[in-house]
Amino acid sequence: MSENSDRFEVAHLARCELFSPKPQETEDFFTRFLGMYVTQREGQSVFLRAYEDPYQWSLKITEAPQAGMGHAALRTTSPEALERRAASLKDGNVDTRWHEDEFGFGKTLSFQSADGHNLALVWEAEKYVAPPELRSKILTRPSKKPLQGIPVKRIDHLNLMASDVTAVKNGFERHLGFRTTERVVDGDVEIGAWMSSNILGHEVACMRDMTGGAGKLHHLAFYYGNGQHNVDAAEMFRDYDIQIEAGPDRHGITQGQFLYVFEPGGNRIELFGEAGYLHMDPDCPTQTWQMSDIDTGLAIGGANLPWETYFTYGTPSPLSLDQHIERFAHFGPGAEVPTMEPVGAV
Amino acid sequence: MSENSDRFEVAHLARCELFSPKPQETEDFFTRFLGMYVTQREGQSVFLRAYEDPYQWSLKITEAPQAGMGHAALRTTSPEALERRAASLKDGNVDTRWHEDEFGFGKTLSFQSADGHNLALVWEAEKYVAPPELRSKILTRPSKKPLQGIPVKRIDHLNLMASDVTAVKNGFERHLGFRTTERVVDGDVEIGAWMSSNILGHEVACMRDMTGGAGKLHHLAFYYGNGQHNVDAAEMFRDYDIQIEAGPDRHGITQGQFLYVFEPGGNRIELFGEAGYLHMDPDCPTQTWQMSDIDTGLAIGGANLPWETYFTYGTPSPLSLDQHIERFAHFGPGAEVPTMEPVGAV
Amino acid sequence: MSENSDRFEVAHLARCELFSPKPQETEDFFTRFLGMYVTQREGQSVFLRAYEDPYQWSLKITEAPQAGMGHAALRTTSPEALERRAASLKDGNVDTRWHEDEFGFGKTLSFQSADGHNLALVWEAEKYVAPPELRSKILTRPSKKPLQGIPVKRIDHLNLMASDVTAVKNGFERHLGFRTTERVVDGDVEIGAWMSSNILGHEVACMRDMTGGAGKLHHLAFYYGNGQHNVDAAEMFRDYDIQIEAGPDRHGITQGQFLYVFEPGGNRIELFGEAGYLHMDPDCPTQTWQMSDIDTGLAIGGANLPWETYFTYGTPSPLSLDQHIERFAHFGPGAEVPTMEPVGAV
Amino acid sequence: MSENSDRFEVAHLARCELFSPKPQETEDFFTRFLGMYVTQREGQSVFLRAYEDPYQWSLKITEAPQAGMGHAALRTTSPEALERRAASLKDGNVDTRWHEDEFGFGKTLSFQSADGHNLALVWEAEKYVAPPELRSKILTRPSKKPLQGIPVKRIDHLNLMASDVTAVKNGFERHLGFRTTERVVDGDVEIGAWMSSNILGHEVACMRDMTGGAGKLHHLAFYYGNGQHNVDAAEMFRDYDIQIEAGPDRHGITQGQFLYVFEPGGNRIELFGEAGYLHMDPDCPTQTWQMSDIDTGLAIGGANLPWETYFTYGTPSPLSLDQHIERFAHFGPGAEVPTMEPVGAV
Repeated sequence: MSENSDRFEVAHLARCELFSPKPQETEDFFTRFLGMYVTQREGQSVFLRAYEDPYQWSLKITEAPQAGMGHAALRTTSPEALERRAASLKDGNVDTRWHEDEFGFGKTLSFQSADGHNLALVWEAEKYVAPPELRSKILTRPSKKPLQGIPVKRIDHLNLMASDVTAVKNGFERHLGFRTTERVVDGDVEIGAWMSSNILGHEVACMRDMTGGAGKLHHLAFYYGNGQHNVDAAEMFRDYDIQIEAGPDRHGITQGQFLYVFEPGGNRIELFGEAGYLHMDPDCPTQTWQMSDIDTGLAIGGANLPWETYFTYGTPSPLSLDQHIERFAHFGPGAEVPTMEPVGAV
Repeated sequence: MSENSDRFEVAHLARCELFSPKPQETEDFFTRFLGMYVTQREGQSVFLRAYEDPYQWSLKITEAPQAGMGHAALRTTSPEALERRAASLKDGNVDTRWHEDEFGFGKTLSFQSADGHNLALVWEAEKYVAPPELRSKILTRPSKKPLQGIPVKRIDHLNLMASDVTAVKNGFERHLGFRTTERVVDGDVEIGAWMSSNILGHEVACMRDMTGGAGKLHHLAFYYGNGQHNVDAAEMFRDYDIQIEAGPDRHGITQGQFLYVFEPGGNRIELFGEAGYLHMDPDCPTQTWQMSDIDTGLAIGGANLPWETYFTYGTPSPLSLDQHIERFAHFGPGAEVPTMEPVGAV
Repeated sequence: MSENSDRFEVAHLARCELFSPKPQETEDFFTRFLGMYVTQREGQSVFLRAYEDPYQWSLKITEAPQAGMGHAALRTTSPEALERRAASLKDGNVDTRWHEDEFGFGKTLSFQSADGHNLALVWEAEKYVAPPELRSKILTRPSKKPLQGIPVKRIDHLNLMASDVTAVKNGFERHLGFRTTERVVDGDVEIGAWMSSNILGHEVACMRDMTGGAGKLHHLAFYYGNGQHNVDAAEMFRDYDIQIEAGPDRHGITQGQFLYVFEPGGNRIELFGEAGYLHMDPDCPTQTWQMSDIDTGLAIGGANLPWETYFTYGTPSPLSLDQHIERFAHFGPGAEVPTMEPVGAV
Repeated sequence: MSENSDRFEVAHLARCELFSPKPQETEDFFTRFLGMYVTQREGQSVFLRAYEDPYQWSLKITEAPQAGMGHAALRTTSPEALERRAASLKDGNVDTRWHEDEFGFGKTLSFQSADGHNLALVWEAEKYVAPPELRSKILTRPSKKPLQGIPVKRIDHLNLMASDVTAVKNGFERHLGFRTTERVVDGDVEIGAWMSSNILGHEVACMRDMTGGAGKLHHLAFYYGNGQHNVDAAEMFRDYDIQIEAGPDRHGITQGQFLYVFEPGGNRIELFGEAGYLHMDPDCPTQTWQMSDIDTGLAIGGANLPWETYFTYGTPSPLSLDQHIERFAHFGPGAEVPTMEPVGAV
C-alpha cells in the first residue's frame, strides 16, 4: 500500500466509559432525558446504547469517586487495520495492551494518548439485534426511537483536554490515520485540534487545558442530527434542573450545532444538532483559526462559552463543578489563571 | 358597554418609523438581509413592508442625526374604537393630536407615553395590493415571499426603554385596553412589562432603562414564526458583518425565540422565531418574574444578554454603540452604573 | 355597543369530547404518543390536558359504540359575553340548554349546529394548578412539558363535516361572532369555511361531507407550534403502527402545517405544526379559493389528501375506516360517489 | 493490499453535467431559486457551484435538444486510486477513455455503466478560491452563503434509472469499491439499490425503469442538510411555478428527507434535507426492502411518489413531461405499463 496507507483505518468512535460519583443519577440522565436504552448491568457498571448505535453499547457508566472518562474505543475498518494500527503504535514506542473483557466487544488494544487519556482500538463488535417489539420499520435503524425524553441517535465524538494539544494530535495523525480538519492557534501554540478518519468534521478533538492540567475529558458528544432537538433539549434541561453550560448555538469550527450540559456526575455532555461540515473533498486542507477570528469559530450566534467552565473545567477535576466555577469566576481570558494540580488520567 | 369595554380595541402594531444616521445602510439591511420590499420614497424617508404585512408599509426609515424611533402606530379594531381611545386619552389628560400625513394611512391620533415615546393610533389603513408578478398563490399572503436574504414575514412588536416602566404600562392598560401578560420585578420596582391587546404574548413591552435615561427604543421586532430562520439569520448576519447582540435562543418571558442585532444605523432589531406563548385563556393572570428566577426568564438556553448593551443601550443614545460598550463593559448588574444624561424622545 | 358588538365574544376552543369504541387504546394514543396528562376519571370517561392547556381538561374520551365527537365547547371572553351569546341563539330560534355537569367547568350552554353537531359555550372554567413536581420554570406554562412521546402543547381547533357548509358557517358568524377567514367554493356551492373569533386562522372549520352525511367530526387538532415536531410525530406514528392519512405538509388554506392520523378509536386527529397565518388586520377580507387553485390550498408540498378518506370519511361513520377505504377507493373527485346513509350527531 | 483494497477509493460525486433544451431557464432555476454561483461560461455550457462545493464547479448545464445527464464524475481519494480503478475497469472489459477537457478538472477517465450512463473518474480538481468579497468567516466554507433564493450547500448524489439495476450495481461494487447500503427487491428482481463508498447512505443509487427504458437519469440531488429548508423550498417552488413532484417528506430508504421538483428543462432534481442515516459501522449489512414493507421505505409521512412520474419518468425522455404524465396517468403499479422505446444514453 502507498499514499494513504493508514487513511481509512479507523471507522468511528464506537464506545466510551464515563466515571460517575452519582451513577444512578448519571444513568437517569441518559435514559430519562436522552432516551438511551440500558442493555446490560455488570458490577458497578451499566451499559447503554442510543437507538441508532449499531453495537451492544456505546456508553458505559461506572461508579467511581470522581467523574471522568474511563476509556474511549475506536473501531477500525477491518481486523487487518487493527493489526496495522497495533504495529504502528508499537513502532512509535507507545505502550499497548491487548485484552478482551468488555461486554459485546472482542479483542481490544488499549493505550494512552500523549497526555494520558485512556484510549483503545477494537474490531470485534457484536451487533445489537432488537427484540421484536423494538424493531423499527426503518431498516437502517437498529431499534425503534424510544418514546422517552428527547432521544439521541448515537454516540458522536470525543473532546479531550490536554496540556499539549500538538502531542495528542500527532498521535492520532501518525498512528491512527486521522486528518486534522481544523485547528486553533494562539501565536505559536496549538490550543485546539479537530480530527477525523472519515468525512465528519471530527471523531476526536483536543483542546488545551488552560489550568495546566492533563489527561482530562472535555466532553463526550451524542448526535441528534437536527437543530430543533437541541432547542427542545435545552428547554427540557432547564425545566428538569440539568445544568446548561452553553447553547444551543453553532460553532464556526466544524459548523457543528452544540448544546453543552453537565450530567449529574459532573461530566460535560454535548448534544450535537444538525450535522456540521462534511469533508467530501479527500485532500481538503486543514483550516487554521487565529485568535483574531475566534469569535466566529466559537459561536456563530450569541452564545457565551464561559471562561470559568468551558476553557478550564474538565473531568476528573480536583474541584467540584460549583467550586470550580467559584474559583474561576473572576479570571477571564488573558488574565493569569489559577494553576491547578495537574490531574492525570484516572 | 361593560366588563371588557376597552379590551379588544387595539388590533396590532401596524407601523414604526426608525431614525437612522446611515439611512442607505439601514435600508440595505432591511431589503438585502431581511427581504423587505420598498413601497415608497418621500423626502428623507423610505417606506418598506414585509411580505405578509397587510398595509402599504410597516417600516419607515427616516434620515436623522441620531438613531431612534420616530413613532410607532397601533391600529384599532374599528373606527369607533379609535374615537373611544381618543376620548380615554383625553379623559386621562394625555396630550393628543390628530393629523393625516402618512403615506397609506388616514387620520392618526398622536400622543406620548408617560416616558415620552411618540405613539399613535390609527384606523384608516390602505391595504397593499400586489402587482400581478408579486401575487402569491397563497391567498392570505399579500405578496410573494421574496427570494432575497432571509425574509421576515411582518412587523411584530415594540420594546420601549423607560425610566418608569409602571407609568408606561399603566398608560397602555388604562387607555388602550392592553393586558399585562408578564412582568419582572426587582424588589418593589417593576423593571419589565409585556403587554398585549390580543392573544399574542406582547405587542408592546417596556423595560427599565438602567442608565436613568427616558423615552428610548429598546428594540423593534420582526416576525419569522420559525426558529430555523433565526438560526439562518444569525449565520447570515455573522458572515455579512451585521453585529449580533444575542441569540438565537428563547426567552422564558413570552417564550419567544429571539435574535438581537444592531442595524447599521444603531437601532436594535429583534428577529422573532417561533411564536411564543399564545394567551388563549381570556382571564389568564399576569405572570410575575422575580429576580431569583430571571435566568430562565431571560434565556432558556445559554444565551448571554450582555449587560453593557442589552440592559443599558437604547436609541437615541448619547454615545455611539461602540462608545457605549466601552463605557459599560466594566459594570455588571448590581454595580452602580454610570448615569447618562437622560435622552428624551426625539 | 355597536360595530363589532359580537366580534370578540368567544375566546377559544376550550375542550372537546371524543367517543371511542376502544377507549383504552384511544387514551394510550393521547398519553403515550402525544404526552397528554390524565387529570380525572369518571364513569366511562377519562379527562386529559396537554401541558399548556389552561384548564382541568381539554379532551374527554368517552367509551361509546362508535367513534365521533361527543361535544365541543368554546369559552367566551367574559360572563356577559356568554349571556349575550345565549340571547343571540335564542333570538335565532336555536334550541339551547343550560347545564352544569362537566368536571372543571361551570354553567354551560349547549346547542347544535345547523348540521347537528353538539356544541357548547362556557365561561366558568377552573384553572389547572400543577403540583410542585410538575410546575414549570416557564411561568406561562401551566405544567412541565412531559418526557413522554412528542407532547402536544394544547388543543387547537375543530373541523366539522357538514351536509351544508354555509348553514353551519352562518351560525358561527351570526351568533358567535366568528369571522370567516377563508372559504372554498365549487361553482356556487361553499364546500369549506374556516372561521375564527381571534387572530388565528381558525378555531372552527367546516367542510362538505361528500358522501351526503351530516353532523360528523372531520378532525380535532392539537398544537405543536413547530414543524419539526410534525416530522418527528410522523416517524413515531409510522413506527408505532398509528395510521397516517397525510402529511407532514402545509395547507395553503390557513398556511397551517398538518399531519393527519387516525387514533385507534377511528377519529381523525390533526397535529398542527408551525402556526399558520395570523390575522392581525382587523378588517382582513375573507379569502375565497376556487377549485382551479385548490392544489395550493390543499397542500403546498406534495402531500396527497386521499379522496377515499380525507373528503369522505368522518366520525361517526357507518363503516369502519378499513371498510370505508375499500368502498371509496375507486371513486375520485368528479365521479359520482356512493351515497351513505346520513349519520346524524350521536 | 488485502481485505478492503478498493473500499475507500472513491471520495464522492464531484460534478454532473445536465442537458437542457431550455438552458437559460435551467440556469435561472439553479441560480435564482437554489442560490448557485456561476463560475464559467464556455460555448453552450455554463458551470455552477453551490456555496460549499469545494471545486470550480459541481454542475454544468449544456444546451441540448433533450433533457438528460451529460455525464457524472466521481473523484477518487488519491491519484493512485484513480489508476487502480482504471485497471479494474480494464480488467472487467469496460471501455474507458482518458481525456482532459473540462474546466477546473484534470485527467479524466470516462466509461459507461452497464446500462449506458456516462460516468467518469477524476483525481485532479482545482479548488475554488473565493474572491475577497465572497470569503466566509466560517473557514470550512469555500464561499459565503448567497443571499439569493434558498441556497443549496453542495451537490449530493445521483440516482440512475436502469433496465437492469443489478448490472449497474455490480459495476459500482466491483470496480469502484462501493458498498450497497440498501436495496429493494420485487420477488427475485432487484428494483432499487443505494450505494456508497463513504459513510453516507448513498452517493449513487439506481432504480428500475418501469417503462423498459435504459440509461436515463432519475434525479440529481443537492444538499441542504436541514429539513426546514426543504419546507421553505417547497413553498418557493409552489409560488414561483416550479413543478413539485413530491415532498417534503422522508424516505425510509436512506432516511433522507426529500423534495422532488422538475427543473424547467425537464430533469428531476432532489433537494436533500436533513442528512439521512450515516453508516458509521464499517461492516454494516445491506438492508433489503421487500415490496410488503415498501410504504415505509418510500415515504415515512404521507407523501405520494406518483406512479406516472416517479417510477416511470427519467431523462432523456421520448415524451415531454406533460405528455408522459398524460400517457401514464391511468396505469398504476401492478398494471401492465406502456412500454416505451428504450432511450439510450445521449
